[in-house]
Amino acid sequence: MMRVPYETVAGTLAALLEKLGFVPAQAALCARLFADTTRDGVYSHGLNRFPRFVATIRNGEVDPGGRPVRVAAHGVLERWDGRRGPGNCNAVESMDRAMTMARQSGVGCVALANTTHWMRGGAYGWQAAEAGMMAICWTNTMPNLPPWGSAENRIGNNPLVLAVPRAAGQVVLDIAMSQFSYGAVEGYRDRGEELPVYGGFDSEGRLTRDAAAIVASQRHVPIGYWKGSGLSVLLDMFAALLSGGRATYQVPPDPLREGGVSQVFLAFDPSQFRAAAELERMADAIVASLGEVRYPGEQVLRTRAENLAEGLPIEEALWRRIESGSVLEEA
Amino acid sequence: MMRVPYETVAGTLAALLEKLGFVPAQAALCARLFADTTRDGVYSHGLNRFPRFVATIRNGEVDPGGRPVRVAAHGVLERWDGRRGPGNCNAVESMDRAMTMARQSGVGCVALANTTHWMRGGAYGWQAAEAGMMAICWTNTMPNLPPWGSAENRIGNNPLVLAVPRAAGQVVLDIAMSQFSYGAVEGYRDRGEELPVYGGFDSEGRLTRDAAAIVASQRHVPIGYWKGSGLSVLLDMFAALLSGGRATYQVPPDPLREGGVSQVFLAFDPSQFRAAAELERMADAIVASLGEVRYPGEQVLRTRAENLAEGLPIEEALWRRIESGSVLEEA
Repeated sequence: MMRVPYETVAGTLAALLEKLGFVPAQAALCARLFADTTRDGVYSHGLNRFPRFVATIRNGEVDPGGRPVRVAAHGVLERWDGRRGPGNCNAVESMDRAMTMARQSGVGCVALANTTHWMRGGAYGWQAAEAGMMAICWTNTMPNLPPWGSAENRIGNNPLVLAVPRAAGQVVLDIAMSQFSYGAVEGYRDRGEELPVYGGFDSEGRLTRDAAAIVASQRHVPIGYWKGSGLSVLLDMFAALLSGGRATYQVPPDPLREGGVSQVFLAFDPSQFRAAAELERMADAIVASLGEVRYPGEQVLRTRAENLAEGLPIEEALWRRIESGSVLEEA
Repeated sequence: MMRVPYETVAGTLAALLEKLGFVPAQAALCARLFADTTRDGVYSHGLNRFPRFVATIRNGEVDPGGRPVRVAAHGVLERWDGRRGPGNCNAVESMDRAMTMARQSGVGCVALANTTHWMRGGAYGWQAAEAGMMAICWTNTMPNLPPWGSAENRIGNNPLVLAVPRAAGQVVLDIAMSQFSYGAVEGYRDRGEELPVYGGFDSEGRLTRDAAAIVASQRHVPIGYWKGSGLSVLLDMFAALLSGGRATYQVPPDPLREGGVSQVFLAFDPSQFRAAAELERMADAIVASLGEVRYPGEQVLRTRAENLAEGLPIEEALWRRIESGSVLEEA
């Protein structure tokens, strides 16, 4: 593990993205989103994900020049076509548009079809909160989770994000519908540790804390069992029906082909009702009522400060591939 | 257990509510909502809950004449004050208002402060779906759930509802943030059965499937552990900040004093984008992709048909208290 300054990482990634066909502004935005994700400690979806992202550009799944276009509007409900552009850039643009509508009309909703993996969902919650807005957004995914009562992966883990602005620390929740992320379970397996709670099923269909068994079966468990299973189905229906795009069952079950997903971005602007300071006090009081329990997002600011001060942590071998540009040439 | 015809139940309840000070139209609506809940098989929140509801009118927590009023509006984001009216009637009115805005502007959001227990949250999902609308709504509650990492009940189980209209069967999810309802755990205890998965903590703070231990500790577990805990916090923040009303920590931890809660009602009308038939086909295809797995709400229609044909099931002793009106005189 080495540490590389944030600006070096962002600049290096942007240069690579330009080589892949991004225009400079999009390259800078996309690079910053990858660097921000590692900066904030979401290592699974930051630099570690960059090689796979490059692969999805090289295989044509992600169009580096694809930009979202509005295809229909009914008041503050808009349908956009993501045109298979970079999912993280598309998501930033969609949340921006939802916020613009919310400033004017209290609420704004962008339903985005035909986009690609948004990487770290929490990024768009932070984006809204840092702009003083409350937001909810979610994405559907490829089928990677069995609905409760089935042994087959037919639903998505459909990450869901809720964000509330707060000067003393944004409150941002970013949860997938699987109890653990796929990377987290692999980490437990690699360390030979048992999961703290059931994380999935073994090949006989029994709930288990054995990470290796879950990696082998590829059967994760939804949060709350039947409850998260149902929530995944409804999030998928909302994303597909509002956007007119694909539902989970239509997305190829292959991380390198997981394109054409559907997303929803909702922004809320209650600042017309009360002074921002009053909303802040309400948010502060709710956070205080949790006592010693961390609020969602609390850890992020500490990690961010540390990584900005000391450099972003990155595996040396990966940094060499990025720095040299060899990551662009990999099959 | 006996069976009483739906219309007899609804009429009897309405007459009692008029005696408690409801105007006839509100009495009829409120009575129908209780009868509908039992009709649909949600027995914990239907007739069985009526005596407690009466008690909250008698103790002044619920104002039988309270009707919601709009206190602020910014575009399609409206703040209403529920004036401590009957929570189920207030919720119907709020969802209606959200749908009116959605028809005109694509999305409508009513944030309702100072309301009372809405009984069955799913009712307002069905209301929207039967009107051809997609909807999301939730409520905060008294503190009845420990946030992950705490032994104290500081967060609410904050029921969350998502609904999608579908002619072949509305898809309606109605989930609280606790893994099991309080009544369900008591049922397992009474039957001497173990919970199928962890439902809470014993008095030593260990996760357990022992229903009696959970009833004793009063420590339920959030769905997905840390994930449902975080989701409960964010749903509470949204409800309180959007409505300007109480957060969970401000609600007395007593079912007879659980007034002044905050709720959010979001309606979406995508029918401007596509013919309803096309949206139906999309919804049907998603439901079909689940295979043999039940979709959220599927069981309701079967139960409804049976209970309408055979009469609503109700404990004889309870029906005697309702039929005789003695339920109004109980302390």
